[in-house]
Amino acid sequence: MPGPTVTFQPDARTVVAEAGQTLLDAAFAAGIALNSVCGGRGICGRCQVRVVAGEAEVDEGGRVPGGGEILACLSRISGDVTVDVPELSRLEGEQILTGAERNGPFMPIPEEAAGERPDAAALAPRDPLVFALPLQLPQPTIHDCLSDLQRLTRELRRAGGIQDLVVPLDVLRTAPQVLRDANWEVTAVLARTNGAHELVALRPGTATSGLYGAAVDVGTTTIVAHLVDLATGTTLGAAAALNRQATYGDDVISRIIHAGEPGGLERLRDAALGVTNVLIGGLAQAHGVARDDIVGAVLAGNTTMLHLFFGLPPAEIRREPYIPVISMPPAYRAGEVGLRVNHHATVAWMPGVSSYVGGDITADVLAAGMDGTDELSMLIDVGTNGETVVGNRDFLVCCACSAGPAFEGGGITWGMRAALGAVQRVKITPGGGLSWSTIGGGRPRGICGSGLVDLLAELLLADYLDRAGRLRPDAPVVRQGPDGLEAVVVPAGESASGRDIVLTSADIENLLRAKAAVYAGGSLLTRRLGIDIRDIQRIYVAGGFGTYLDITKAILIGLLPDVPVERVTFIGNGSVAGAKMALLSQEAWRRAALVAQKMTYRELSTDTGFMEEYVSATFLPHTDCARFPRACAQLGRQD
Amino acid sequence: MPGPTVTFQPDARTVVAEAGQTLLDAAFAAGIALNSVCGGRGICGRCQVRVVAGEAEVDEGGRVPGGGEILACLSRISGDVTVDVPELSRLEGEQILTGAERNGPFMPIPEEAAGERPDAAALAPRDPLVFALPLQLPQPTIHDCLSDLQRLTRELRRAGGIQDLVVPLDVLRTAPQVLRDANWEVTAVLARTNGAHELVALRPGTATSGLYGAAVDVGTTTIVAHLVDLATGTTLGAAAALNRQATYGDDVISRIIHAGEPGGLERLRDAALGVTNVLIGGLAQAHGVARDDIVGAVLAGNTTMLHLFFGLPPAEIRREPYIPVISMPPAYRAGEVGLRVNHHATVAWMPGVSSYVGGDITADVLAAGMDGTDELSMLIDVGTNGETVVGNRDFLVCCACSAGPAFEGGGITWGMRAALGAVQRVKITPGGGLSWSTIGGGRPRGICGSGLVDLLAELLLADYLDRAGRLRPDAPVVRQGPDGLEAVVVPAGESASGRDIVLTSADIENLLRAKAAVYAGGSLLTRRLGIDIRDIQRIYVAGGFGTYLDITKAILIGLLPDVPVERVTFIGNGSVAGAKMALLSQEAWRRAALVAQKMTYRELSTDTGFMEEYVSATFLPHTDCARFPRACAQLGRQD
Repeated sequence: MPGPTVTFQPDARTVVAEAGQTLLDAAFAAGIALNSVCGGRGICGRCQVRVVAGEAEVDEGGRVPGGGEILACLSRISGDVTVDVPELSRLEGEQILTGAERNGPFMPIPEEAAGERPDAAALAPRDPLVFALPLQLPQPTIHDCLSDLQRLTRELRRAGGIQDLVVPLDVLRTAPQVLRDANWEVTAVLARTNGAHELVALRPGTATSGLYGAAVDVGTTTIVAHLVDLATGTTLGAAAALNRQATYGDDVISRIIHAGEPGGLERLRDAALGVTNVLIGGLAQAHGVARDDIVGAVLAGNTTMLHLFFGLPPAEIRREPYIPVISMPPAYRAGEVGLRVNHHATVAWMPGVSSYVGGDITADVLAAGMDGTDELSMLIDVGTNGETVVGNRDFLVCCACSAGPAFEGGGITWGMRAALGAVQRVKITPGGGLSWSTIGGGRPRGICGSGLVDLLAELLLADYLDRAGRLRPDAPVVRQGPDGLEAVVVPAGESASGRDIVLTSADIENLLRAKAAVYAGGSLLTRRLGIDIRDIQRIYVAGGFGTYLDITKAILIGLLPDVPVERVTFIGNGSVAGAKMALLSQEAWRRAALVAQKMTYRELSTDTGFMEEYVSATFLPHTDCARFPRACAQLGRQD
Repeated sequence: MPGPTVTFQPDARTVVAEAGQTLLDAAFAAGIALNSVCGGRGICGRCQVRVVAGEAEVDEGGRVPGGGEILACLSRISGDVTVDVPELSRLEGEQILTGAERNGPFMPIPEEAAGERPDAAALAPRDPLVFALPLQLPQPTIHDCLSDLQRLTRELRRAGGIQDLVVPLDVLRTAPQVLRDANWEVTAVLARTNGAHELVALRPGTATSGLYGAAVDVGTTTIVAHLVDLATGTTLGAAAALNRQATYGDDVISRIIHAGEPGGLERLRDAALGVTNVLIGGLAQAHGVARDDIVGAVLAGNTTMLHLFFGLPPAEIRREPYIPVISMPPAYRAGEVGLRVNHHATVAWMPGVSSYVGGDITADVLAAGMDGTDELSMLIDVGTNGETVVGNRDFLVCCACSAGPAFEGGGITWGMRAALGAVQRVKITPGGGLSWSTIGGGRPRGICGSGLVDLLAELLLADYLDRAGRLRPDAPVVRQGPDGLEAVVVPAGESASGRDIVLTSADIENLLRAKAAVYAGGSLLTRRLGIDIRDIQRIYVAGGFGTYLDITKAILIGLLPDVPVERVTFIGNGSVAGAKMALLSQEAWRRAALVAQKMTYRELSTDTGFMEEYVSATFLPHTDCARFPRACAQLGRQD
């Protein structure tokens, strides 16, 4: 007996579900990405839907007070049901602005970025990872009666110098028809995989356009996918969604533990793979691209994400001596990995260094161009893992320290990714209140990373917040909330949901812990390298802030070191930018491999100096104003 | 709703079937190989079963008169049913003696065979296609913290000189556990595939035994599989069954036509693949070998069989200029092909020459050792396609002419493969009757190829048959049957089925056509090469005769040329012998590739001389006694 059916309106999309499955999972299976910042734990309240026919079993806490809405993540399927999905509950809107857009209102990657420019427009697809080779084969005759495969092999050797052709059986199955229908004028789509050239597809005609690739940042908290035209290098679109692995734990450690439970690894794999497939599928649909024409994908993420995505047991990552199964993975076929693009598409993961420094950092370095510069540079990735790299073309050293997902909107009551409706800039008005602007200009739905940085800085500047991170109860925007003091950022009447958007004391604690971890990492690393932080000539900041970050304010709260602001370059999502570079250029791919080989990892978690650095950094900007002279001067409170 | 269940007794094996499916197909799916010489067309009456519970829909002609038995091929499943399968209806018995046994009562491959001995005992596995490499990996430490994959790669480079390792994702998934459980003492199972070394499996411990391979002859009529121990070269067992593609046509041309119909190619592929999987599965079970430990397979068959087995469209094979999709296929993974052994097992098909000369002939040449001798040799494969090769180490020329499956038991009323119960030797007794002996000594079930050769020769010698192939109505064993004259070979009281085993006039016509095609091919080929057949120093005979062929009698009926009998060597199933050599030795595999490259094909079907040669050869032994002086002398009737 097939399971009950669930229909989503107004999309009119129906899926067969299993009894007991949540509506959130069913929506996911139907390709409808619901907003679920909390990862489906009934906390964020974003996945509201309304039952219009049939019914669902709603767990405790799953009914939204004062309305007919229920939370999809807490509602279980017991029979056929039809639900309406309001616009506000959807991720689709968020898919419009998600990182490295080229010409959006907020510059994703500043023009002054050193080294190779990672923005899509500047990327000429010189030698993409998967490429097209037009062929004019001689027609077979009784005197030239080679088999179809031998004829193809001969021509690829002649025309492309390809000596090591591998033709998958199912490509070979359709080849005779393609060759003859196209009168022997065809285009070979070739991938360099495992040291051989693999024939991904054989297409009629000699056009080399119409091939696409995906660059994907598989973050611990967020997954961002870009769809790229391999012939022109143009980014057709970008989409992002929460990494649904968050259901099984916020950070990599808790996910590694979950992976050790029965079926845990498969669940984690399916979660990340599922999100990625939905994102790529949505982009393909939106841009009229057939999945079969997506012939390559380069992914970047930390080493745990790599293991979980490929279904590799990650247990040893957190056990001494911290041995990953792979850190520089070979390319695999999409069919083997489970990515729903062309079955034979090459799927490559950016090469990483070790259990704690993954391909996302290699991608950052590549995007920043650190490996090609003489300047002594520092790269800070403000992601869940908080990695810092110091170096230049001669050396690269990195460290990591768990920062948590606060700046990506995780663990913050009204936190969200940089997307339409996210408060991204905040200012104290002359009257003492707060003004704000959102991405896209619409009603606020939450606060993204750059908005949180602004908010902390402005509260601090206005003295609504003290240097220990305590809200002042008498400040105009501060009130007593259910769990202590909170600042009202957007009053209910102006927000999209009709509820007050607030920043709670717990939110502030989370933010301080996150920024302290990031700063302490970079600070201790330079100290251990014997480098004065004043000698750093260039700081690159990467992370899920969206397309905008006020550097001055990031320094003011002590997230970044107190260097002249012109030395700091915000590169946005360096992970996806680097992955895209590698997708479009085999030369960039080789550079990435060199970066991973060259980079050394410095373990700071066992460094006795770390806790001291960290605790000092939980102040705003820092306990030691000598380290933050400009910031403390601006605050007018040099201690 | 799942389909109806079918239970087979006394095996107590149950499968879920589809309504409308035949009991024959269901038995097949259950791994019970029913005898079905006619390929499931309700003709041979061998697939009798008895319903013991439930019922089946029996098509017209499907009820065996005078008993409760029904024909499985004409009985369709309409609901749950239990059937009893009598021993006589099974192929299992036939699986015991099927070709190149080493020490059976009938020598499969005479010791005097020139060149490399193709019998299994003589095959030392010097460098099998898939091999085991024991490794002692250094345990990881904080100072030697390479990933598991890098550690494996490094050790394989050090210990085995392997530079081009490919590790499939699912092998990598289990590697961390295997490595640690085995305390880093493991054995890598490696295949050379597509120019790289692929890690088929990683096994705990350093034992290199316990790896198996399959050598398979995919014949147009019969599929023969041998299970081989790769460490010792020992053949554990052999099994054979009818190629179920016969349901869709007896010869390659009718199958190529069927492949062009909707779903036809898939049906043909599934038929051959299904039989092969049942044979290998049965052998594995019988010898206690896990399917996962079967890590390599080498198949041999003609070019059409290759296309159908791999699901490649064969249409161009029979259209000028006769271009196959492949003739020298690369190795594929079992999972890609659909062979149910280790998913990553290497599946290689013996290299062929052209649309009309396949890997079966290359295998024959390899098994005979023709490519390594100075003797001017001729190889005759008395299979459905009737190929002949002439040459030595300097040149190889071949031709093919459709002989039909008569000598494999096809199209002959009581024809059967060489298997237990097959009449394989026949003699006219002093009293003028017929005496016979069967393979295994039991009651006769039918007549195999060597029995048919004996029978024709003895009838001819006794003058019960004239030189035009007409039975004499007054001969002691000849009677009027329902369709003309027939010779009673085994009376009902002595046969296994309790029915008379006869040779009909139509059977004789089929046999004469088959032997004429074989002879005409070799005769015309030598003529066109300007070689006198008397200059041929060695004749190798391959084919599905089983383990025995009386050379003198084969000459007497004009199947083989009239040369001194000591020049003729019967090599049995050269196809499976050659495949086994290639499975056990990469050197032999390379030799096979050289043979295929060197061999040229001579098209005889368009040769005006062929029809003349053929018609003359339909006589016994031939119209021209000058060509068969010894044979005609023996018959005492030199015309």
